[in-house]
This record gives sequence, C-alpha cells and structure tokens, in this order.
Amino acid sequence: MNKYAVILGNLGNTRDRFLSSGYKDQPDQAAMLRQAAEIDGIQGVELVGSWDITDSTVEEVGDLLDKNNLQCVSIIPDLFAQKRWGGGSFAAKSASVREQALEETMKMAELARKLKCPLINVWPGQDGYDYPLQGNFPQERAWLQEGLAKACAAYPDLRFSLEYKVKEPRTHSYLARAADTLLTAVGTALPNVGVTIDTGHSIMAGENMADAAVLLQQTGNRLFHMHFNDNYRAWDDDMIVGSIHFVEYIELLYWLKTTGYEGWYSMDQYPYREDGQGAVRESVRFLQGIERMLDDAAMDEIGELIREGNAVKSTAWFRSKVFNLQ
Amino acid sequence: MNKYAVILGNLGNTRDRFLSSGYKDQPDQAAMLRQAAEIDGIQGVELVGSWDITDSTVEEVGDLLDKNNLQCVSIIPDLFAQKRWGGGSFAAKSASVREQALEETMKMAELARKLKCPLINVWPGQDGYDYPLQGNFPQERAWLQEGLAKACAAYPDLRFSLEYKVKEPRTHSYLARAADTLLTAVGTALPNVGVTIDTGHSIMAGENMADAAVLLQQTGNRLFHMHFNDNYRAWDDDMIVGSIHFVEYIELLYWLKTTGYEGWYSMDQYPYREDGQGAVRESVRFLQGIERMLDDAAMDEIGELIREGNAVKSTAWFRSKVFNLQ
Amino acid sequence: MNKYAVILGNLGNTRDRFLSSGYKDQPDQAAMLRQAAEIDGIQGVELVGSWDITDSTVEEVGDLLDKNNLQCVSIIPDLFAQKRWGGGSFAAKSASVREQALEETMKMAELARKLKCPLINVWPGQDGYDYPLQGNFPQERAWLQEGLAKACAAYPDLRFSLEYKVKEPRTHSYLARAADTLLTAVGTALPNVGVTIDTGHSIMAGENMADAAVLLQQTGNRLFHMHFNDNYRAWDDDMIVGSIHFVEYIELLYWLKTTGYEGWYSMDQYPYREDGQGAVRESVRFLQGIERMLDDAAMDEIGELIREGNAVKSTAWFRSKVFNLQ
Amino acid sequence: MNKYAVILGNLGNTRDRFLSSGYKDQPDQAAMLRQAAEIDGIQGVELVGSWDITDSTVEEVGDLLDKNNLQCVSIIPDLFAQKRWGGGSFAAKSASVREQALEETMKMAELARKLKCPLINVWPGQDGYDYPLQGNFPQERAWLQEGLAKACAAYPDLRFSLEYKVKEPRTHSYLARAADTLLTAVGTALPNVGVTIDTGHSIMAGENMADAAVLLQQTGNRLFHMHFNDNYRAWDDDMIVGSIHFVEYIELLYWLKTTGYEGWYSMDQYPYREDGQGAVRESVRFLQGIERMLDDAAMDEIGELIREGNAVKSTAWFRSKVFNLQ
Repeated sequence: MNKYAVILGNLGNTRDRFLSSGYKDQPDQAAMLRQAAEIDGIQGVELVGSWDITDSTVEEVGDLLDKNNLQCVSIIPDLFAQKRWGGGSFAAKSASVREQALEETMKMAELARKLKCPLINVWPGQDGYDYPLQGNFPQERAWLQEGLAKACAAYPDLRFSLEYKVKEPRTHSYLARAADTLLTAVGTALPNVGVTIDTGHSIMAGENMADAAVLLQQTGNRLFHMHFNDNYRAWDDDMIVGSIHFVEYIELLYWLKTTGYEGWYSMDQYPYREDGQGAVRESVRFLQGIERMLDDAAMDEIGELIREGNAVKSTAWFRSKVFNLQ
Repeated sequence: MNKYAVILGNLGNTRDRFLSSGYKDQPDQAAMLRQAAEIDGIQGVELVGSWDITDSTVEEVGDLLDKNNLQCVSIIPDLFAQKRWGGGSFAAKSASVREQALEETMKMAELARKLKCPLINVWPGQDGYDYPLQGNFPQERAWLQEGLAKACAAYPDLRFSLEYKVKEPRTHSYLARAADTLLTAVGTALPNVGVTIDTGHSIMAGENMADAAVLLQQTGNRLFHMHFNDNYRAWDDDMIVGSIHFVEYIELLYWLKTTGYEGWYSMDQYPYREDGQGAVRESVRFLQGIERMLDDAAMDEIGELIREGNAVKSTAWFRSKVFNLQ
Repeated sequence: MNKYAVILGNLGNTRDRFLSSGYKDQPDQAAMLRQAAEIDGIQGVELVGSWDITDSTVEEVGDLLDKNNLQCVSIIPDLFAQKRWGGGSFAAKSASVREQALEETMKMAELARKLKCPLINVWPGQDGYDYPLQGNFPQERAWLQEGLAKACAAYPDLRFSLEYKVKEPRTHSYLARAADTLLTAVGTALPNVGVTIDTGHSIMAGENMADAAVLLQQTGNRLFHMHFNDNYRAWDDDMIVGSIHFVEYIELLYWLKTTGYEGWYSMDQYPYREDGQGAVRESVRFLQGIERMLDDAAMDEIGELIREGNAVKSTAWFRSKVFNLQ
Repeated sequence: MNKYAVILGNLGNTRDRFLSSGYKDQPDQAAMLRQAAEIDGIQGVELVGSWDITDSTVEEVGDLLDKNNLQCVSIIPDLFAQKRWGGGSFAAKSASVREQALEETMKMAELARKLKCPLINVWPGQDGYDYPLQGNFPQERAWLQEGLAKACAAYPDLRFSLEYKVKEPRTHSYLARAADTLLTAVGTALPNVGVTIDTGHSIMAGENMADAAVLLQQTGNRLFHMHFNDNYRAWDDDMIVGSIHFVEYIELLYWLKTTGYEGWYSMDQYPYREDGQGAVRESVRFLQGIERMLDDAAMDEIGELIREGNAVKSTAWFRSKVFNLQ
C-alpha cells in the first residue's frame, strides 16, 4: 500500500506574480489540516518553514496533527520565500546569507525531531543564476555542497532529501536534474542525503520520470521522497496528477514498486483557481487508481513488455486497460 | 461513424538523417495497400506524389485501390522530397522553382480527378527560413499565397487543404500554426481552400488541438482534413496516437463532433522502429475507443463540464471513465 | 529616431509566486517617474490601471508626468491583478465579470483622454483556460471579441492594441500569438484595433519576432505597439533586452523600420533581483546601439542579404559588425 | 591558442528524413579534406567510422591527412548509421548487437592507433527508448556502462569521450546530459573515460553550456572534447556557431580557459542548404573572434563580474564589447 501525503500549503491560498494577493482566501491552519485529513488515503502532511511552522508554533501544530491523525512526513525549510534569500541561500554570494541558510535548515531539523518527522526536504530554489556572466559555478556549487553537508552531518538521525528543479524562480538552478543532484548528494559522503523527485520538475527538465527514479535507486537507494503533480512539460504548472499525462505515471509507479521505493507519495500542487481539497483529492484518487491497476498480473505483464520493448505491444496493453477491454 | 484513413507511406520504410537507408525494408506498393486494407476501420489512403503516385502509375494505383476497397482520400503533392525543393517551393526565391511547385501541384490535381480523390493536402514543408536575416517575409509570404491561389482556382471541384507545421525541415515555416494558415487560406478569397490539422504539429506548436480546430471551424468550416499522431510536445515524433496523451484527444474528438467536422481521420506516423501496420492499427483502435466513449450521454456530460469549467470535475470525469468507475 | 518608453512598474518592486512580498522595496510613484525620466532616451511611460493610475490619482499623475517631461504613451487596464479576474475578464464565464471588464477598460479610456494618452494596451491575461475539458472555446472567444469591440467602438479617437501571450497566468491564453490576435482585431471590423508585440511573448510562442511584425504590418498596419524584453525562449523571463539574443533584434528593428512602424519602443521587464533603473537603461542602450548600427548602408546591405538568403553571408555580416571588423 | 577542428562529414552532403537523397551532392573524400585544410585555423579533423574510414581505407586516409597537414583528432565509431543499430548498440536488447557494438568500437580504436589519433568520441545515439513502457532502464544502463568499460579498458593509451544528447534519433537517450554521462564515465572506474560536450546538445538539454563544462572539469578534468554548433534551444539544428547565440559562447570560452581545458574546439554542423566550407569557416571565425576578445584584461573583468554577479553590469560589459564602445 502506497502512503499518501500532501504539502499543507496546497490547501491554502495561491499567488502568482500578477495576482500577489492570491486567487483565493487563506483558510487558517486548523482548517487546512482538517481538510487534509478528510481526503481518503492521506495520512501525512509536509510543512513549510515560516509558512506552516516556527519555533513558537511547533507544539500547537503537533497537537493539531495528532488530533487529525496525521503524521508530519517532512519539513521543507523556507530557503526561498523571504527577501534575504533573493540572491540564494546555501550558494549565495553573501557569506552571511549562506550562514543563515545553514541556521534555518538546522532550526527546522530541531523542529523535525520534536514532531518525530523523519525527513527534511531541502529545496534551495533561489540557488542558481539568471543571466550569462553571473554565476560563479565552481565556487557556488562548492558552497552549496559544503553547507548541505554541514547540516546533514549534524543530524544523522534525520534524512535530508534534495529537491531539484531546472528553473524558477531563477532561470537556472544549481540542483537542476536528477543526475546532478545525485552527484551533490553523493558528494557529501553522507548516507543520510538523498534526492526528491517532484514529478513536474522531472517532466519539465525533459526527463522520463521513471528513468530518473531508477537512476537514483540504482545508486544506493538515494530516492528518498516523491512530490506529485502534472504539467504541460514546459513549465512547473503544478496541476492535478493525471490531468495531462497518464501512461508515464503507470511507468513511474511500476518502477517505484520494482526498485523498492518505500517513501511517501506526497501531493505538491498549486491549485490557483481550483478548490484545493478537491484538486488534491483528485490527484490521490488518480494514483490510487494506478496502484490498483498494478496488481501482480499487471506487474508481470509490464515486466515482459519492458524486456521485449515492442512499442506496439506496450501501447496495446495500455489501451486495453484504459478502455477496459478484453 | 468517423472515417479512418492512413498515409500509405506509414506502412513503408522510414528514414532519418542518421540512417538514410532507413530502419526497415521497403515493401512494394501492393503489399502496403493490402496491409492498409487489413486494418479494421481503415477505408481510405492518402498518396504522396512521386513516392506513391505519378502520371505513369495512376491507373495501376487506381486498380489496386479498387481491389482493396480503399478510397484515395487525399493526394499530397511532393513539394519537399526532391533536391529542387531544398530552398522552398511556392515561396522559393527562384522564380523557376515557384513555377515548378505550381506545376507539380496541378499535376497532382489532375491525378486526383482521375482517382475521384476529392482533396489535395498541400504541405509546402520547405517554405520558410532557417537563419536570422535570411527570410524575405512579405515577399515570400505573398508568393506563397499567390501560387496557392492559382492552383486552387484552377480546380474548383477539388478542395485544397493547407497543412501547417511550425518547423522541420526548416527551423521556421511560413505555414506555421492554425491561425496564420487560416489567414493564408482566407487570403486566397477562394471557398475551396482550407486547413489541415496534424495533431502532432498542433501539439508541437504549443496549441491546444481542440481550440485550433474550433478556430478553423468557426471561420467558415475551414477545417478540411485531419492527420493523427502523438509526440512529446517539443518535436514531431510522429508516434502512435494515445501513446503519450489521452484526455486531449477526447477533447479534440468532442469538438470535431460538436462543430460538425465531416472529413477523414487520417493516420500520419513515422514508425521508425515499429511494425508499420501494428503502429497504425493501434492508433485507429485508440481513436475508436474514444469514439465509443463519446456516446450521447458523454457528449452531454462534457458539454456541461465545459460550460462550468471546474477543473476538478473535469478531471474526475476523465478518471471515472478510464478507471471504469461508478 | 525611435521613441523609447517604459512601463512604470518596471522600476518598482517585483514579486513571484514564492516571494509574494517581492524581492525589493517599493519606491513611491514620484521616485519611479523621476527614475524613468533620468534614463537617456526615455520619453514616455505606460501606466497600469489600479497599480499606477485611478480616477482619483489621474490629476496628480498628470502633473508628475509634466514635471518629468514624460508622455503617457499607453494605459494598460488592470484585467489581471485582482481576485475578480481569476477566471477571466472579457472571456469570463461570469456575465457580471465580463461586464466589469468592459467597464474597467472604458474607465481607463476616459483617463487616457484626460492624459492625452493615445493608446490603450489591452492584455486580457486571465482569458484562457488551464485544463483539458475546461474551455468553452467558441463561446468564450466570441465573448472576448464582442467585449473588445464594444470598448473600442466607444472610443474611436483612441487606439486599442491587443497584447498576446501564449500562456501565463493561464496555461493557455485566447490571445496567444500574432496571427490569432490579428484575427480577433480584424474580427471587430474597427480600424482602431491593432496588436502589441511583446518581444518576449513572441519568442516564447516560437515565433520569429520580425516575421510576426511583418505579418501585422502587411494587414493594414495593425502593429500598434511594441514591448521589449528578452528571455530563454521557453518562458516569459522578462530580462534585459540583448542579454540573451542579439541578431534577432537586429532583424526585428530592420523590419520595423522597413514596414514603417511609427509606434513606441517600450521596455517591459521584471528585474526581480536587479536595480530596475539600471536594467531598463541597459535595454534602451542596447536598442540604441542597434538603431545606430542600422544606418542607410546597413539597411541596404541587409536588404541585399535578405533577397539572396545565403545564411553564410548573413552570419558573416553580423560577425563583421559585432567584432568590428573590416 | 585554441585548436580548431571539424568533423569531416560537415563538408559533405546532408540528408534529413524528408530528403533522404540529401540537399547537396557528395564530394569525394580528397575534396573534403582539402576543403577542411583550406579553412584558416583548422588543424584537425574527426572521422566517422564507415562514412569516413574503414580497415581498408585507413592507409589512404592517413596519406591524405598528411598531405593536407591535418591531424585526426578523433574517430567516431559508427554506432548509429546502420540498420543493425536501429534498436541500440551498447544498450541494445540483443546480446549479439551489444557484442557488435563492442567490436566496432574496438576496431575503430585500432584504426586510431594507426593514425596516431588520441581520442575515440563515442556517441551511442541509438541507445535509449522512444515509448513509455519500453525501456528496461537498470538493465540497459548497466549493459551500456559494462560495454563501454570493456572497450576503454582494452585501450588505456587512448581517451574515450562519451558524447551526450538528450534525444534524437530516440525520443530519450541514456547518455542524455552532462551529469548523467559523467556518472557513467566515473562508473567505469577508468581514468581514460571522459565526456564530450556538443554545445547544441547542451543547449537543447536546457543546460548552461559553461556550467556543464565546469561540472565536468571539477570532477577530475573529465571534459575531454568539445563539439560546436548553434541552435534555437529546442532541437539539434546544428547551425553555424554564433548565428543565434553570442554571450553564452563568451561565457563558455571563459570557463574553458579558466578550468584549463586543453582539448580541441571541433565544429559539428549540418549545413543542409549552405555551402559546407563556408558554414564551417564562419563558425571558426566567430570562435576566433571571441578568443581574441578574451585577452588578459577581459578575463580579469569577467572574473570580477562573476564574483559580483550583478546582471546589469554583466550585460553592460557585453554591450560595450559588441558595440565597440568605451
């Protein structure tokens, strides 16, 4: 049975650069947690630092989680949503900012321990560059890896999962794709550093999601965490899972199962104009539909298809499933 | 009932720039026509000038079509597969080449009359430009429209359908997207000039296929013809229909039905490494699956979804269909 | 001599979906206008409704413009930056919202008259759709055109310029590319409706900017306005002009000159992390550099290159200019 | 002084999938080598197996090279241009084909020794997959790495440089981007295995070319070889260097110099409709122009710009250079 979770903010207000007040009203945290708990299958939430959790609210949040029978499956340090991170966090040109990134990450690790949350999902979204002749590549990549290594070494009881994204908010990120992020993770020489695949980030990077997952699993089971959403391939549209693509999610879930992925299936969307709970529920239901489809017989059939590699047969298999044939 | 067809060459050898001998062996024409006829649902074929049909073979081809109970649903003049077209056809800088393009198109119109084929599918694939400071935009667009108008005016009993493609073989084509091609068609001031949507070309142009189809139908029912294939959005991969996308084909077929499209559903693929007949058969079966799905009840349901525009409900509807719920 | 302008907000704070407080502090309007006036070459500004100008501030803004020797070259009605526009403006499913879009646009037309501003730049950025099975294409396109026609017919002394953008904030816009927007403009049957090319929007739509400009100019000089910025082709990065591309801007300015474009060259950027004034100044300087390059001799040389279409020669010409050879 | 070379086939006929006879006539090898030698700056050529060199022609080719004062700087085994490779080479599902890929590569290594050519450029272009549910990712990636390791271990006196490309001829390649190819190179545990950056492949993968180069150099100087061409970012257009992009090549050459790259600058284009010699000459001249621009003062200035990271200043620096200001 797959374990489903959601990033709490999916249920709140969503902004973009044109409508910075947001498209919706912001519910309070208790309401968002209740909404999360109401979604069939959801057993956990991810919390973003400063948006969802701080030093002073950790007890209260813990109580609300308990009350709603929800686990905190990951904390995402806020390394991207404050003015001070505008020029980067772990890879910022400013030594003071780099220090603050480390502090912020370790503060979140403390909160994770308090909530018995096993994983820190690190998305250093502002670490990168926008223009040619701007990035100091070797220096900044070194800072990034060193800072991450310091934080991760200090909390060996926690797992740190690096989330990559090829661009946005910068035009180029340092943690851009599965393979380069794996290099950074392995470069720390620490066993508690792995990689998060956000399905939308993988798609927009031009990766095949399943191939990326296998690459990480083949290298010491370094796939630590999964974020789910869908898009039109060119941008991080953060849409309902399965609203655009289908068979590629089947392929992904097949390989997650085959390679023994044991982490969470966590929803990460931006339902700008949609009801948040409805949008997340649809994503979970879609993935549950595939989970049911992938019974033992189907797993064997796909295994055989993959060994043979005949695209006509692979397509026919998918068609027979979705049109409920045979 | 939709009418299905196939471009004959789909069943033959396929080449690319690295493997110019092709990935497969070339069957003879009789074999290809037999293979086309064997595919359930296929009632017609499209023939490419010089590849599939010439002055001297038209009788023989007509006999083979009759024997296989196939109609010739369109002829595609060869304006792209000879050295002389390297710099363009109707929009070439050479007056002599422009004249040859007109002659070639009119020659194919003559053959179409002989075969009782009602439509000429014009793809001036070499008309465009590759580099900055190369295209003489106003002059070349004018030549293109004038040349097309001459050909189309000469055969008022035939329909001429202009197929657009944003790029390849040039980096930029003059007939690039639905709207600009519609402008060219309307610009001829002739009623027998319309537009072909190739689904893959539309996807790679960043269009929503259904929206493009509606645009053409709204302007005097100018959608004359449809080519079907699938791709990964960034290039004309010419893959099996439904191998990547799904719900967008449902939306397309919904709108084709709603706007009264009465043309053919013709397969246009490049099954480089696949069995051609199998690849085409899968495409037809996929579209037939959607056709069956779109019964009266489903048409009403989609109509209601579209009036409301609630993405959660639209996604739920699709999910309930493909996982066979309810 | 080209006339340069800037959208006033370029000099203010810039937000994105992650950092909704913005990357910078917001200067007051007087400071922004002073900064605009300080940039060599800038003679005009564009004002965005509700952000930069309202009923109650129009006098004050007019005074500030005079004081800084700046013209108001366009007003951009706010049809995108309020919660009520989340589901669209002229093409919204809600009749009340469509009515409000019309009112808002006409209110801005009144302000334009007061400021002797000759042009309304209409960007109905929320008019489109995000998901499959969501857009009611023919109905919503009809509403859009009808609403625009009403507003434009009411102010025949003003020019209305429709700005297209293929996506963002929606995944698909109704005014997406040059040709479809031209169809809408022409569809109003009004002479005072034209099209704005935003260079970044054109690039991200896969267009060649110059070819798009020519298309609009060839159809009754319908290119009314120009917005300038640069990007990496896949998204509206709104960067400094010339920071990524070069020769394509030369081609664009060549054709603007050749086709008699007499409108403004207005900067439209999002300098998230940059000094706004500096970023705009660089863009103007870059365009001025090209303007100087395009002397009579260069215009003749390019004309000859374009007639011949030899890419080796065209590239050599560009190289000789930028490396200052010969 | 940079060392310039060219892939010999650039000077010959070029085909695509529509015009498999090619756009030009094929000169003989002596003529192509003479043309290469005539280009100022070109000192070496790369030869493609079966197209340019075989067991039986190696002596003759060697003589022609000597006669034209050209070095053979790399041999590219033909692992992509024969029917047998249609389903892959080192990663093919067929054990016999995998064995043939090894043999072919080793045969080319023998020829390299004979010609005193120091490098084998391995592009296993057919190793990948096209459709979902087709690739057996872990197995095929393992085969690829094992096969490469066998070949490279057998010729420790030669360098093997793996060329990546995100797609084409497959829709997905196993050696897709810099980082994953580096993982494969490092995975062989051999010091003579590195990576080739083809600038166009890097651009179309969404990489910043310079950042990719630095990543490879930082990991044991694994950047062994460089191929140069330009494109519109979305596809491998193989155009004249500098015909589209400019400042990004400056950044690349800056970092190649800074990180001590000592390999060749080899042209790799597909001048479909252009004079081959002219197109290659333009590319070399463009790179030489940048090479001259990057004098000691400029290197220092860029170093300072990169440490500061101010995009306005970086853009201003570039502008001052290309418009010859100051």
